[in-house]
Formats: sequence, structure tokens, C-alpha cells
Amino acid sequence: MSNSRIPGRNFLFVPGPTNLPDRVQRAMMVASEDHRSPTFPDLVKPLFPQLKKVFETDAGHAFIFPASGTGGWEAAITNTLSPGDKVLAQRFGQFSHLWIDLCGRLGLEVIKQECPWGTGNDPEKIEEALRADKNHEIKAVLATHNETATGVTSDIGAVRKAIDNAKHPALLFVDGVSSVASLPFHMDKWGVDVIVSGSQKGFMLPAGLALMAASPKAIEAGKKNSSRRAYFEFQDMIKNNETGYFPYTPSIPLLHGLKEALAILFEEGLDQVYKRHHHLAEGVRAAVGAWGLKPCAKEAKWNSDTVTAIVVPEGYDAAKVISTAYKRYNLALGAGLSEVAGKVFRIGHLGDLNELMLLGAIAGAEMAMLDNGIKIQPGSGVAAAQAVYRADPLLKA
Amino acid sequence: MSNSRIPGRNFLFVPGPTNLPDRVQRAMMVASEDHRSPTFPDLVKPLFPQLKKVFETDAGHAFIFPASGTGGWEAAITNTLSPGDKVLAQRFGQFSHLWIDLCGRLGLEVIKQECPWGTGNDPEKIEEALRADKNHEIKAVLATHNETATGVTSDIGAVRKAIDNAKHPALLFVDGVSSVASLPFHMDKWGVDVIVSGSQKGFMLPAGLALMAASPKAIEAGKKNSSRRAYFEFQDMIKNNETGYFPYTPSIPLLHGLKEALAILFEEGLDQVYKRHHHLAEGVRAAVGAWGLKPCAKEAKWNSDTVTAIVVPEGYDAAKVISTAYKRYNLALGAGLSEVAGKVFRIGHLGDLNELMLLGAIAGAEMAMLDNGIKIQPGSGVAAAQAVYRADPLLKA
Amino acid sequence: MSNSRIPGRNFLFVPGPTNLPDRVQRAMMVASEDHRSPTFPDLVKPLFPQLKKVFETDAGHAFIFPASGTGGWEAAITNTLSPGDKVLAQRFGQFSHLWIDLCGRLGLEVIKQECPWGTGNDPEKIEEALRADKNHEIKAVLATHNETATGVTSDIGAVRKAIDNAKHPALLFVDGVSSVASLPFHMDKWGVDVIVSGSQKGFMLPAGLALMAASPKAIEAGKKNSSRRAYFEFQDMIKNNETGYFPYTPSIPLLHGLKEALAILFEEGLDQVYKRHHHLAEGVRAAVGAWGLKPCAKEAKWNSDTVTAIVVPEGYDAAKVISTAYKRYNLALGAGLSEVAGKVFRIGHLGDLNELMLLGAIAGAEMAMLDNGIKIQPGSGVAAAQAVYRADPLLKA
Amino acid sequence: MSNSRIPGRNFLFVPGPTNLPDRVQRAMMVASEDHRSPTFPDLVKPLFPQLKKVFETDAGHAFIFPASGTGGWEAAITNTLSPGDKVLAQRFGQFSHLWIDLCGRLGLEVIKQECPWGTGNDPEKIEEALRADKNHEIKAVLATHNETATGVTSDIGAVRKAIDNAKHPALLFVDGVSSVASLPFHMDKWGVDVIVSGSQKGFMLPAGLALMAASPKAIEAGKKNSSRRAYFEFQDMIKNNETGYFPYTPSIPLLHGLKEALAILFEEGLDQVYKRHHHLAEGVRAAVGAWGLKPCAKEAKWNSDTVTAIVVPEGYDAAKVISTAYKRYNLALGAGLSEVAGKVFRIGHLGDLNELMLLGAIAGAEMAMLDNGIKIQPGSGVAAAQAVYRADPLLKA
Repeated sequence: MSNSRIPGRNFLFVPGPTNLPDRVQRAMMVASEDHRSPTFPDLVKPLFPQLKKVFETDAGHAFIFPASGTGGWEAAITNTLSPGDKVLAQRFGQFSHLWIDLCGRLGLEVIKQECPWGTGNDPEKIEEALRADKNHEIKAVLATHNETATGVTSDIGAVRKAIDNAKHPALLFVDGVSSVASLPFHMDKWGVDVIVSGSQKGFMLPAGLALMAASPKAIEAGKKNSSRRAYFEFQDMIKNNETGYFPYTPSIPLLHGLKEALAILFEEGLDQVYKRHHHLAEGVRAAVGAWGLKPCAKEAKWNSDTVTAIVVPEGYDAAKVISTAYKRYNLALGAGLSEVAGKVFRIGHLGDLNELMLLGAIAGAEMAMLDNGIKIQPGSGVAAAQAVYRADPLLKA
Repeated sequence: MSNSRIPGRNFLFVPGPTNLPDRVQRAMMVASEDHRSPTFPDLVKPLFPQLKKVFETDAGHAFIFPASGTGGWEAAITNTLSPGDKVLAQRFGQFSHLWIDLCGRLGLEVIKQECPWGTGNDPEKIEEALRADKNHEIKAVLATHNETATGVTSDIGAVRKAIDNAKHPALLFVDGVSSVASLPFHMDKWGVDVIVSGSQKGFMLPAGLALMAASPKAIEAGKKNSSRRAYFEFQDMIKNNETGYFPYTPSIPLLHGLKEALAILFEEGLDQVYKRHHHLAEGVRAAVGAWGLKPCAKEAKWNSDTVTAIVVPEGYDAAKVISTAYKRYNLALGAGLSEVAGKVFRIGHLGDLNELMLLGAIAGAEMAMLDNGIKIQPGSGVAAAQAVYRADPLLKA
Repeated sequence: MSNSRIPGRNFLFVPGPTNLPDRVQRAMMVASEDHRSPTFPDLVKPLFPQLKKVFETDAGHAFIFPASGTGGWEAAITNTLSPGDKVLAQRFGQFSHLWIDLCGRLGLEVIKQECPWGTGNDPEKIEEALRADKNHEIKAVLATHNETATGVTSDIGAVRKAIDNAKHPALLFVDGVSSVASLPFHMDKWGVDVIVSGSQKGFMLPAGLALMAASPKAIEAGKKNSSRRAYFEFQDMIKNNETGYFPYTPSIPLLHGLKEALAILFEEGLDQVYKRHHHLAEGVRAAVGAWGLKPCAKEAKWNSDTVTAIVVPEGYDAAKVISTAYKRYNLALGAGLSEVAGKVFRIGHLGDLNELMLLGAIAGAEMAMLDNGIKIQPGSGVAAAQAVYRADPLLKA
Repeated sequence: MSNSRIPGRNFLFVPGPTNLPDRVQRAMMVASEDHRSPTFPDLVKPLFPQLKKVFETDAGHAFIFPASGTGGWEAAITNTLSPGDKVLAQRFGQFSHLWIDLCGRLGLEVIKQECPWGTGNDPEKIEEALRADKNHEIKAVLATHNETATGVTSDIGAVRKAIDNAKHPALLFVDGVSSVASLPFHMDKWGVDVIVSGSQKGFMLPAGLALMAASPKAIEAGKKNSSRRAYFEFQDMIKNNETGYFPYTPSIPLLHGLKEALAILFEEGLDQVYKRHHHLAEGVRAAVGAWGLKPCAKEAKWNSDTVTAIVVPEGYDAAKVISTAYKRYNLALGAGLSEVAGKVFRIGHLGDLNELMLLGAIAGAEMAMLDNGIKIQPGSGVAAAQAVYRADPLLKA
């Protein structure tokens, strides 16, 4: 007799890749087609204005690179800055760390500011550093809108204000991989110069597209910089995209998927998408409280509406909770990374999700914790989240 | 702004159609093909011995009719009995009722025995009726293995024993639509003459295939009966199936899906499939108990491992609970039918399911009951089910 | 080394099942859902008026049975006629034969009129028989709109005229399995009482749905007849369909597929669908002429626009041509059946087809004939069809 | 009435993206999953040895970058060479041109050798240049195995010999985007240091994966070079791939598709895959001859088995042929690019293809040429290709 079990559906609660809606999966089931055909632009052209609507930019230019979000970071850097340029970046989690690392590899001089993990961008320190930079050697400020590793959302408007207060001309680059299309994002209002996101989070697609936008100022900067680049060249994209094509063969199923994902987002309405994410996140946070545990985010203002990192009690190994959840209950939780490895497990709550999916995940996390000896009241997290969800004014009567 | 919400995944907990495993959905995504080609039998022929393995019959003949389970009932009757023949049937739920109704339409004289809804086949009454039938006018006994409407499983072995005790030659027909491939079924051991099932329950497929088997005795009976039939003719099927074909165009995607579903069942192992269903059902029953509610099944021995009908407290409308669950929480529960309409809601727990899916459904049922004023302790059902699931010896350590 | 070859796409030129458009295949890729949910009628209800549009009936009632076309035949008979009733039917191919056979099984007395295979319905003989039936014992005339076995289309309007000329009240039943949605069909104009079609031909779906319509007169007739039926009961369907449901579990993917297939048909426009079929057929017929061969259809007026049966020269075995086509060239041709077995092979040209698909099939048929020693000029059929296709006024300039 | 036509299947004969086999399309239809789960390496790890088998390398290291082939070129360069390094490249078509252009952008000094379009790599000129490079300033030779723009295949073994003859230590980089998995490729035997391919050609997948391999010598070279890179870093890939993971989120459906595509290739057997491509190409070339036209490839030795560029007669515009083919006949042909724009159209014949697909395409090309006034004999190309295909010893008797 086999000892494999029919798995049923995997409960996918890593903060990306997120669940593919059936509509997106259907949309991606397309035959190959000629990406130079006269009808191909009918698919391609409408994507850019729609992406700009998600980024909330009129003046900016949207890009679709066949790459992961990491490729988007590289595109942002190499198109706008030159090796040796100084950038200011704060580190408070694995993803802000990795972006800094990438800047170093690409020849930038990074002025690193350490912030405690569990907090986010500190505008005061940014303002201070910029004020000190009398000669305007700092060419860009890098901000991580949502630090996926710790479940912390930063106030990008405040970062913009810090730059303005310092009357500093630095560009503002934002990593919105796990925020865009899930959390409110105001590119023009916040004066963001490059925003980088990826297809596999709020856009509810497989990984494979770096979705980004650049301000006219950033694109202008790109014309005179000296970073070497080819694959990630903005100008090739701009020139080709204008006519509805790409400089090289794009991943056609992903483009069809993107078209459908955007349609889904606009049908729900971006405002409502953001409210839904907030609401679902509130339930998770209520569960954490009911368990008597703490999120990694050090204050309520840092709480992310797309991912919650949960600190296990002293003496327990979060990695074991995650392993149990996966092996026994078919529940994929996010691991703690680097400084918080073994200390936290993460519940992603973004993308195509609803209340019952999350309640199943919360129930599963409870079982995995109990199996590992963590003392929580069974069902307590579920009950706390239920109370939040039942009170949702967005739900139909 | 739209007021539609991205739904996330629907929690489908009607007792059929059940969830399609991704593997089955992939398998059904096939191009059309010539159903008279020389290679088509490679697909068709292996299906029959595999179905026989599920029904647990060596001597019987398996059938795949392009129809729903209702068509399977009709095939069973018209191939074996003649108008005017007497059959003995007990009524204790909507599906045993409908089968009786169908027998009447097809010209049979049904000797109906009423059993309380919430119980199942009563072997004593069957034995009694057969003993009284000195002239052996009763040609068949109809038994509903799993009454989907009330969540009641009958003991088919005991029915067989009743027939044997009465030394009566009646055929034994069993409705196994919501039992086969989820509950142990022993066609040969129980001396079942016709077993009727459908694709959309334990077989984890869309509706569209009546899956059934007939004993040599039943097939022999069919050769001399006078019911008129064409579409559902056993002999045409037997003749064509032997060579790997069908008498008319089959639904090819469903055949590919069936092939994959059978592979999935055998990979898990039928014994383990049955244990898993029992185990998942135990969790649901624990939840019902924790809510302070009662199942429709009147005694533990009637408990079905594929569906639980839950009686709402006096003064509440189960239909409203179901409506709330569907509209607010994207949870599809089964309705109470006929005698139990408004009195029960049903949680199907069969097919491609796991613990977290059920915990999500239990949590959703809790919310829908609370929203309708039913006084239960939030999270209590979840906690009770968690305790059952955590103790599952089948789960990996 | 393996001797399997990557097959590329199968060229499917049996006259059904036909190719699934990608759009239909995508549409069928749906999760299971509750077929009793409050939103299910949104899918179901619009299908009926759209089907009526295809059948061209205002007064009639459309039906969707989960069955093959054979089931549709049975539904037509058992809902309207009683055992012992006389029906008039002409036999001129395997499918008109099978329908007659089915009538016999269902207890009808069939007045058979033999017409040469390669011709179709002979209205004069129908009129004659009806005139002779002074007592109006003939309850229905059965006409095969398109005899799939010989590639012959009959003039249903002329059959109606024959009935009218004879001033006979017989019902008119039409088998439109391989005509509806491919050839013009005028149910009301022709006074058709029951039209039977299937999903796997002009509707471009897998087999599994009998699509049909009945006139008020036919439905009225059904209320007093004595055929026994249950699965195929019109009244259950009418009652349930009105509210957007079915009396038993429908095959949900097929309903989604049907919705999409109807959308595709209406987007092209039924008139243009018919013109396209005619045009594609003209190409095939030109090829047959260029090969120096004859179609099975004895005169041009019998030519079917959905399938061409091609007579191989004396001394050659059409079955070998078909076998070679399948094994060597991955081309599925239709076989000759019964009286024309071994004498003809058939090219189906209906459904989701275009010129190049047919030219590939014609080229393949040429190779298979040449491989079997049949003396034709290589490329001659292709060239003749090209000339037809290039002259198509429907093609864009 | 609509003037859209049901399209039937698009005949896709651009030399990439190529047709997706149904098996690959099914394999890609997967739910999202955690790309850091303990079971993910079960998918990832076997891909690398299998890719190495396709590249025919034991010593080399295989890479899967989430990028197009262009990204693969960039990875090859930036991982092994430093800005200012000299490379030797021959230009004889649009893709050899673009690679040279990319080298320039990435800071290399390219020693360009012009070869006539319609020819390929000229080993003598390579040897000559290398002999002249006494100081070994040339760090790499770039060779385009299959120039997609002109339908020319170069002899990479001869290029290796030229390098060896010159006793030059230059690395050998090969663009195999439109050759690998379709034409024999011997990485180790030919001493190739970096081979770059893409998923959307012989691998029968959508674009989105740069599939490549590097020799130990190339990887060693990468450790001391000074090109800036991050996304395309070999070392990150090597380190992560060893454990079955990727440094960033991979496109999971493409990985599943790659697994299935490799299975398909090995089931047919690589040798037979190559023979099939040769055979299909021979048919196309026979057709071109029968039309009285010439391929762009100037001599038979340059003929590519994956794509044929066909020169239209003086005075005709190949672009119009392509446009007619697409708009009237749903046939996608490849355009002439750059120097050969308007002069050639291209028929790609690689990937998941069979004889009838090609015969349909040939027939379509004939019609499009005739519609544009080019004087060819209708059906002549088809007849010539049929003769080739019927004689194929690989086809079953």
C-alpha cells in the first residue's frame, strides 16, 4: 500500500509566489504565436497604461522586463546610475539587504544605514544624511516599501518628505515587489523615480515579469550614465513598446496572464483590493494576538498588510513549525531569513485570497505550533480572526 | 468602483461535484481525437479492470456510460428488469426517494418501506418482506449505500445477509454514487448485482460518467427482460468495450480524466483513501459536537464518512446559513432537501480534500451560523477538529 | 534509441469529434462548482435562447441532455411517441440505419424506405407513403439532414413540403448531428418538430451533450404518450431549466464550453459560418475531382458541406488508405461504414477549421493514397483546392 | 453580421517561438508553489544533468536563467570577460549582428569580420585573425551556430579547428538559440566554452528561459573578470542550483514545462529528433526548388535544418507575401530582417512539427505568393515535399 496521501489543495502562504486565480491560469493557456505579427500589439499596447494606473503615475513610463524582481532592481540601477555613484539605503531585513548587495555588485557606493529589523525606513535619518551631503554626491535614495522578510511596511510619502526637506535632488527608488497591487502606491504623489515590482505577488502571476515604472527624471538620468547594460536597456524597451513589440521574444503566456490579472484588479477596484488586503491582514494580526505571540513588526505602524512575520516564543525553532506545517498539513509558510532565521515564521496574505483560505492557514499554523510544543489555545487564532472577518463592512449582508 | 471582490478560491463543500485535483484537470486538457483510431483502445481498455478493482469485483462487468448517476440508475433497471416487475426499496432520504420515483416511471412496481430519515437500510424489514414474498415476485432489492441527503451510510453486507437469510433470489442493486471510491465497497463479497456510481464524487471528476458494474447474474437477467432501452444497453457496451471502443462517441476528456483519477486513487491506495475519508469525517463530527449540535444521522452507526448533515437548532433556518456561507464567505454547503429542507445544512467531505480545506470550511460554517444568530462558540468546531487531525496516525511525523 | 517520433499536431479529419478551439478548451478549464448555487443560473439560463437561435426556432423548446447524440435520438422518441407507433424513415447510410434500429428497440414500428447510399431523403416517396396512410397511423417522419457516413445532405424543406402536400399530421424529426451549426438549419421555417444534434460536431465541443429542440406540438404529444423514460424526460428538463438548473448534476465544464462555443459562432455570424463550411467543402470537392475520383454522393445536389466520402478506385482498399494516413502521417480520416466499408474514406470538414488545415489533410490523403498504389497526380488535389480557396470572396484582400 | 472568421488553428512558421506540444502545455498548467519548499528540488535538480545531455557536455555546467536568449548572451559575456576585452565575431545576419551590438554595449572591443549574408562562419578568416593576434588579446571567438535570419548553419567543429590550428587560447562562445535541441550539438567534442540557447525554439516552450552551459574554463575565467553583473551571476546560480533552488523566484510553470519538454526529446531520442528536423527541412528545400526559387543560403552546405529563408524574385516584395499569408491564410511566416528585408520570407521548421503541418504551410506560402503575382506552379512545392516525405525511412511502413 502506498503511503502517499491525496494532497488536496496546497495552502500556499509564502508571501510569493501567490495563488494563481483560475482566470489567470486559463488566460495563460495560449498557443504560441508570432510576436512580430501585425496583431500582437493589440495584446501589448494596452498593458502599459494599465500598469501606470496601478503604479499611479501619469508622467512615468511603465516597463515589462522578462525577468524576476531582482532583474528589475538591476534595470533600475543600470539605467540611471553610473558605477561609483553614491546611493543611500537603509537595511532592516533580508530584501533591503539584498538590494544593497546588488548595488555593490553593480559598482555603486552604498551609504548604508542600519535600522532595527522589525522597523522600516527612518525618514529622519535619511533627511539627516541628505542634509549632510552638501555636494549632492548621493544620486539616489533606495527605499523598501514592504520588507517581505519582517512584514514591515514603510511610509514612502515620509521618505519623499525627508528628501524634499533636505532640498536634495537625489532620485527616489522604491522596491515595491511585495506591495504594488496589494498596498496603496502613489508613484507621482510620492515623487518616486523608479518603482520595481514583480509578477508573482500582488499581480497574481507566476514569476517571470519585472513590472516597473520610471519617472521622466529617471529616464533622463539614464541617457548620460555609464553603467553597461543591454538586456535591461530602458531605451530599447521604450522604442519597441511604442509600436507594441519587445526588443526580444517575450514570454507570451505571461503577457496574456498579465492582461487578465489587470482586468481582475480593475474589476474589483484598486481601492477595494487595498481594503481587502488590510482586512485580511487584520484577521491574521488578531490571531497572533490571541495566540499570545508578537509580530516581528515592532510597532503597529510598521504592520504590513501583505505579510505577517510571527515571532515564536524563546526556546522554540520556527523552522520546525514551518517544516511540520508543510509535511503534515500541506501548508507552505514563509521562513525566517538571515537575522530572524528560526525566530519567525511568516504568513503571506496577498494576492488572490479570501477569508476561509486564511482561516485554514491560521488553523494549520496553530496545529504546527501545537505539534512543536508551543503553548497556544487551539482554535484561538481562528476565533479571533473570525471576529474580524465577520465584522467586515465590505462583505455582503 | 466595483463592488465585486476577488473571490479567492471557492470552498466547495457540497457532497458533489467535488474538487478536481490539478492532475485530473491537466489530464482532461486534451485535443479532440478520433474515437475509432487504432490507438484509442490504449486509453479505453485499461479503465475497465481498474474500475472493477475499485468496485471489488472479479466476476462483474464494469460500465462507463456517458451520463449522470441518474442515467446509471436507469441503465441498471432497464437492463435487468421488465415493466411490472416488483422491487423492494426503503426510503430514508431524497436520493433513495428519487430512485424509487425513477423505478415507477420505468414501469416497476415498487414495494416501498419507509425508514426514518436519519437512518438507513433496515435489513430486518427487508428480510421480513422477502420471507413474505413466497412466490419470489420481488425481482430486486434496491439499497442506497450512502444517502447523500442525510449523511447516512447503510450496511450493505447486512442487506445481503437479509436476502440470504430469506433464501430469496432477488437481485441486489446498490446506489453508490456518493460512496464508491470514498467508502469501502465490496461488490463480490456483498453479492451486489448492480452497483451504480458517478464520476463527480469520489472519482473527483466532473459529472458526465455513470460508472457502474453488473454481476453475471444481472447481465444474464438482462437477456430476457422486456424493458425497452437503447442508449443504456449493456450488450452494446460489452461488445464495443471488448475491442476498446464505445457504441457512440464518448466524452474523451472525461476518459482521460478517469484514467488519471484512477491512477491517483491507486497511488494513495484504496485502503488509505477510505481511512483518510474516515479521518476527515471524524474531524467534522467532532466540530458538530463542539458546537452542541446534532447530525441528522440518528446514531453513530449511521454516520457517513463522505457527508455530514447538521441539524440547526429549532427556530433557525438552515437555508439562511447556507446562503450566508455562499454569499459572504464563498463557501458552498449542501442544502437540506425535501423533508429536511431548512432543517439541515450539509458538509460534503469526500474526494480531493485535506485537513486545512475542511478546517476552512468548518470555520466558515461557524461564521455563517453566528451571522444568523445561532449560538455557538467561535472557533470551537475548529479546535475540536484540530484535535482529531493532529492525532491522525496517517500523517507524517 | 526510441523509435517514437514527436508527433506534432494530429490532423483530425473524422467528421466528429471535431477540433476544440483554444477558446473552448480554456473555457472548459474550470474548477468544480455547486450546481445548485444561486449564481449557477447565470451560466445556464442564457444557453437556451442562444441554442434556439442556432436551431432557428422561436416557438420551440431547447434541451441540453448530458448524453451523446444517440441519447438525443432516444429522448426525441420516448418523449413523443408510444411503443407500437408507426414512423416513416428512409435508409441511405449508417446513421439513418442506426436511428431506424434505435426506433425498433424502443418499440416503434418503422416503415423503412430504402434509398441508394449516396442519395438522401426522397420527398416523393415520403409523400407517397403518407398519402397512402389514410388513417394517419404514421406518427412521425424521420429525416437525416446530413448522412455522415456517405457525405450526403438532404433537403429538409422538401421533406416538409412532402408532408404538407400529403396533408398528413405526422411529426417531423430531424437528425442534425453533423449539420446543425455548420449547415443552415431552419427549424420553424421547415416545420421541424424535433431536431437532435450533438456537442462534438459543429458545436466544436467534446461529446457529452445532446443538444436538441422540440416544437410545442412535439412537447404536447409527449404529454399523452406511453413510452417509459426517466433520464431523458423533457418535462423534468423544462421545469428545472426554467429556474436555471438541471434535474441532475450536469457536466459543468461542457456547459462553460458550450457558452464559449456559442459566443464564437455568433461572433463569426451563423451566415458566415455556413458560407465558410461551403467554401472549405468546395475545395475538398475540387481536390477529389483533380484526383480523378468520385464522391460517394451521387449527384452534386447531395454534396455535404460538412463531410466528403471519397470512393477509392476499384481494386483498392480504402481501409488501408486510412490506416496509412493515421500511422505514417498522423492524419485521422473517417472510415467507410457498413455497405461502403473499404470502398470510401471520409474527410470531415466541419467545426473549427481553416484552409491550411484542409490543405494539409488533402496533401496527407494524397500521400496515403500514393503509398497504397492509387494512381493520382501528387499535389493535384492541393492545387485544385488552392484555386478554390484563393478565390474565396470572404477572405480579406 | 460579423466579418470575423473562426480562425481554426494558426499555422505558426516563424522560427520561434515554436508550437507548444499539448504535453508541455498541460505540464505548465500548475498551481503556484513555494519555491523554497523541501520538495522543490525534486523538480529542479534533474533538469541540469538532462540539459547537459542535450548540450552534450560532461564537464560543463548548465544554467537556467529566467530571461530570453538575449539575456543568455549577456550572461555569457559578463560572467567571463571584462570591459575592454577583445572578441572576434563574424557578421552574416541579423542575429550575429545583434550579438556583436550587445558586446559593444557591454564594453567589449569587437573585431568584426563581415561574411556575405547567406554564408556562415568562415573558419579560415578566424584562423587568420587569431594567428595575427600574437599577444592573445582576443579573449573569445563568437560563433552563431544557426543564423536564424538567413537560414544558415555554420560548422562549429571547423571553428574549433581554426582556433586550435592557430594555437590560440581564446574561448569559444556559441549562439545556439535556434539550433540546440534541433540540430546536433557537441559542446565537449567541439570545445565550446559557452553555449547559449533559449526555451522558445527546439525546446518547444514559451520564451522566458535562457538555457545555457559553460565549460570549466569559462567559469574559471569568470572568477577574475571585471564585468559588473548581478542578475546573471553564474556563481549565485551554481551555489543555489546545487541544492535545488534558485537565487531568486523562478518561473515555476516554465520549469515544469522544461521537465516535460526534455522528457519528450529523450523519448523520441536526440538522434531521431535531429534526423526528423533534417527530413522536414529537406521537404521544404525541395518545395523551394520546385517553385524555381532560391534559398538565401548560398550553398547547400549552409542549409539550415531549422529555418529556410526563401528569396522572392526580383521585383516582388517578400513583406507582402508575409502579410497576405498572415491575413488571408492564418499563416505566420518569418520576415526578412535588415539587409534581406523585403527580399526573403522564412519558413521555420523546428520544434513540435510534422509533415502535414509543413505541407499546409508550404501550400499556404504558395497561395500567398500567387496572390502577390509571383509565378509559381500551384501545388508544385507541395508535390516536391510529398515526394521527400513519402520516402522517409523513419516513417512507419
